[in-house]
Amino acid sequence: MGAPQTLEKLHVIDRENRRLEWTVAVLRWDQETYLPEKGVEGRSEQLALLEGIAHERFTSPETGRLLSELGSVPENPEGDEKLPPLERDFLRVFRRNYDRAVKLPKEFDSAAARAEGLSQAAWINARRNNDFSAFLPHLIKMIDFSRQRSMYWGYADNPYDGLLDIYEPGMGVDEVSEVFIPLGDRLSALLKKIASCPRPDSIFLDQDFDIERQASFNRDLMRRLGFDIHRGRLDVSAHPFTTTLGSDDVRITTRYLPRQIQSSIFSTIHETGHAFYEMGFPDDIRDSCLADGASMAVHESQSRFWENVIGRSLSFWEAMFPVLRSYFPGALSLVTADDFYRAINLVEPSLIRVEADEVSYSLHVILRFDLERDLFSGILDPADLPAAWRSKMKDLLGIEPDSDASGVLQDVHWSMGSFGYFPSYALGNLYGLQFRDKLVSDIPQTEELISDGNFAPIHNWFRDNIYIWGRRPQPQDLLKTVTGKSLSAEPFLRYIESKYAGIYGF
Amino acid sequence: MGAPQTLEKLHVIDRENRRLEWTVAVLRWDQETYLPEKGVEGRSEQLALLEGIAHERFTSPETGRLLSELGSVPENPEGDEKLPPLERDFLRVFRRNYDRAVKLPKEFDSAAARAEGLSQAAWINARRNNDFSAFLPHLIKMIDFSRQRSMYWGYADNPYDGLLDIYEPGMGVDEVSEVFIPLGDRLSALLKKIASCPRPDSIFLDQDFDIERQASFNRDLMRRLGFDIHRGRLDVSAHPFTTTLGSDDVRITTRYLPRQIQSSIFSTIHETGHAFYEMGFPDDIRDSCLADGASMAVHESQSRFWENVIGRSLSFWEAMFPVLRSYFPGALSLVTADDFYRAINLVEPSLIRVEADEVSYSLHVILRFDLERDLFSGILDPADLPAAWRSKMKDLLGIEPDSDASGVLQDVHWSMGSFGYFPSYALGNLYGLQFRDKLVSDIPQTEELISDGNFAPIHNWFRDNIYIWGRRPQPQDLLKTVTGKSLSAEPFLRYIESKYAGIYGF
Repeated sequence: MGAPQTLEKLHVIDRENRRLEWTVAVLRWDQETYLPEKGVEGRSEQLALLEGIAHERFTSPETGRLLSELGSVPENPEGDEKLPPLERDFLRVFRRNYDRAVKLPKEFDSAAARAEGLSQAAWINARRNNDFSAFLPHLIKMIDFSRQRSMYWGYADNPYDGLLDIYEPGMGVDEVSEVFIPLGDRLSALLKKIASCPRPDSIFLDQDFDIERQASFNRDLMRRLGFDIHRGRLDVSAHPFTTTLGSDDVRITTRYLPRQIQSSIFSTIHETGHAFYEMGFPDDIRDSCLADGASMAVHESQSRFWENVIGRSLSFWEAMFPVLRSYFPGALSLVTADDFYRAINLVEPSLIRVEADEVSYSLHVILRFDLERDLFSGILDPADLPAAWRSKMKDLLGIEPDSDASGVLQDVHWSMGSFGYFPSYALGNLYGLQFRDKLVSDIPQTEELISDGNFAPIHNWFRDNIYIWGRRPQPQDLLKTVTGKSLSAEPFLRYIESKYAGIYGF
Repeated sequence: MGAPQTLEKLHVIDRENRRLEWTVAVLRWDQETYLPEKGVEGRSEQLALLEGIAHERFTSPETGRLLSELGSVPENPEGDEKLPPLERDFLRVFRRNYDRAVKLPKEFDSAAARAEGLSQAAWINARRNNDFSAFLPHLIKMIDFSRQRSMYWGYADNPYDGLLDIYEPGMGVDEVSEVFIPLGDRLSALLKKIASCPRPDSIFLDQDFDIERQASFNRDLMRRLGFDIHRGRLDVSAHPFTTTLGSDDVRITTRYLPRQIQSSIFSTIHETGHAFYEMGFPDDIRDSCLADGASMAVHESQSRFWENVIGRSLSFWEAMFPVLRSYFPGALSLVTADDFYRAINLVEPSLIRVEADEVSYSLHVILRFDLERDLFSGILDPADLPAAWRSKMKDLLGIEPDSDASGVLQDVHWSMGSFGYFPSYALGNLYGLQFRDKLVSDIPQTEELISDGNFAPIHNWFRDNIYIWGRRPQPQDLLKTVTGKSLSAEPFLRYIESKYAGIYGF
């Protein structure tokens, strides 16, 4: 069989696999948004079955045979050298996915999926009851499954390297530490400096903002940003997320707190940034494994760019504050765009990453990175996690949670067995500002566009420079192609030090 | 391999098949409720893939081999005689499902699916243009495919018997005619009698009822009826339906018309009745093919019992009207429970079944049955259908459509090749009243319970007498077991003649 026919068969397998992944995504989206409480167990069984079937079909002997016809060594450039670049990238990514999938035994995979469903349900209850001990056995299982997974896949120096590499190909403990150490030092210093300055007024944010009106404003806002409502939705879940259920079905969620309107606004903008990426892949990679972000951190660079660099800028609120005020004319009648800008950029170390300001945000991530690294190296016992959490929190951010619910139990990721994922959040900040510098050098009037509420040119720049490639490049190569530079914390630190010097007047 | 091991393997196949069916149900539920407009094409691809996988796994050679180990002739009592009753029932139903799935050649199935797609498109246009002749060639094909399908499956005397048997096992043309003839005669006579009486006032229903408040009332109502909100949901779709997404996940939908509050109320109660059945199966048949209604008509007996026998009774509104009025104090301030009861029981022959009153409802079904029977026996030429429709309509309901669009072309079922399905709707009324008579003889204070809004004892009676059996008995045997009697139109006719004599005063 010639290479074109072999490749075509791999494309068929790949498309089928994507459709099964999307079906799984429908089940999961429903679980987070509308599933009746007692339906959780049945849903876990459905998920385990479907993931098992997807795995079985994707990793069938036929797939392996077709791949070896095209060069048996994974990512072997010689085997693929006569292919056009798009097919070469397809084959590299397909091989990586296949490799990841065949290395995990089927029974392991379904057991993990089942355990994850139960773990998530247990976490929800544990957090509600502030009862870490009820969650601990699940957490231990999740760590153990992750360690085994990393062993099956293989890793450089320790299992945590293998987990980091899943989300950020090419990154291990050493590479992450190299940027996180200066990042942590300079952010902690900035935090201290800010703590000595007078605090901007934000009291007007502490009013009752009707949830139905918040929901209307958020729908309005996402449309103004350019979200195509015929290809996606906004719903409510405990923890905001973006999920892709099909090439033309990308859904985001947010949550509404009556007295913190900024919470829903910034999570909506954040998830909209993710959705733009997912909705922006070009037709030549539609329905394929290449229709995906280059990495978790590159994905996060998009959400955090829209959330912070745009969404927390003064220019943005010059355009949007009049709109927001039209939804809440009473509560915001005496507030100006500038007041609002200062209030939403209030720096105040808080207990939870998702609600954190831009300065302390990455410190939360560094906390997780340090704890995960120590859990996997065996230095830290999971049972000691609540205490370790409190102590790290004190070191990095200078505060301590008064309950495990707002400490170690605050977040869904560990309950799903997602370890190695957190660093992406801070790496995303770094990528995002490196992209921003290039965007501004290509489109010098970027600030004016934002203050006019005209986001299309910015959108197009991201489409032409980032979205268009999907998962084709390795993240470090994409960064180099777009910006000409390697990963660095410098652009982010320059941006944040200058922005907050302006707000706090030092 | 011994029978217990073989059976256990069939149970595994059966449970897996149910989980895949439920996964398909999640995709379909989402499609009808929340899917973004442009996601439809991707969703169709996911559904086709998943249904193909489910079919392939259920009909694998392994399934056939296991079944033949337990006695190769379908429903062969000798092969199963040593099994306990529950396993014997499981095997009978599993065999029936398997049989249905394997008897249609794959080419036939895809040719039929293709023709159905074209037929539905042609029907949409034909109805729009009021042009039956454009739909006729497709209708002829649909009849022909149904006739062939019935031949593949096997039938008693004529192909229509086979189609009736799909939805109502054990029922053929003769059995249905035996109850439909007296039913048609007496309902037509009742309709004439009512037409000569003064019409109850229903003008107060034609007011603006806020949709959000309707939704709140419907949620309240379903909970008061006993719907367990931790095991199900209420959402909105174009056409109301009930769907099961798992043993503890049964969802219903309704639709809200601002000026017809009764529309959402009665479709909510109707679907709640279906949901009670689906939620009521006992643990010994959980997750198996036996956790299903005994038949379409028995299912319909539950929905129509709650919708009409309870939901359109004066006792019910004595309990519920004060609740309804508390949601719409302005619109209903001068209305009494008795006024409301009379208004929602207004009898007025209309052209379309779905909005019909209790008296004319079954006549719409009889019209379909007569026409379908004559089409399949060859007495009626499909080309003569428009004239036959008008003449039957006149005979049975005393009215005539002014166009084929609102007559023979009104409904989607025939365009999809769904013949034999309609009778279930009226048979459900008959089963329902036979069950009611037994319920009232077991619980004489039934009316008082209803007017107290205390539905639990009624619920428990249905659970102990109907739900508990699931799909185990043949519908006629269930009826006999519960009521000691065979199918008859008498209880329904007694109920309806007495109820409407009361309302219309004759």
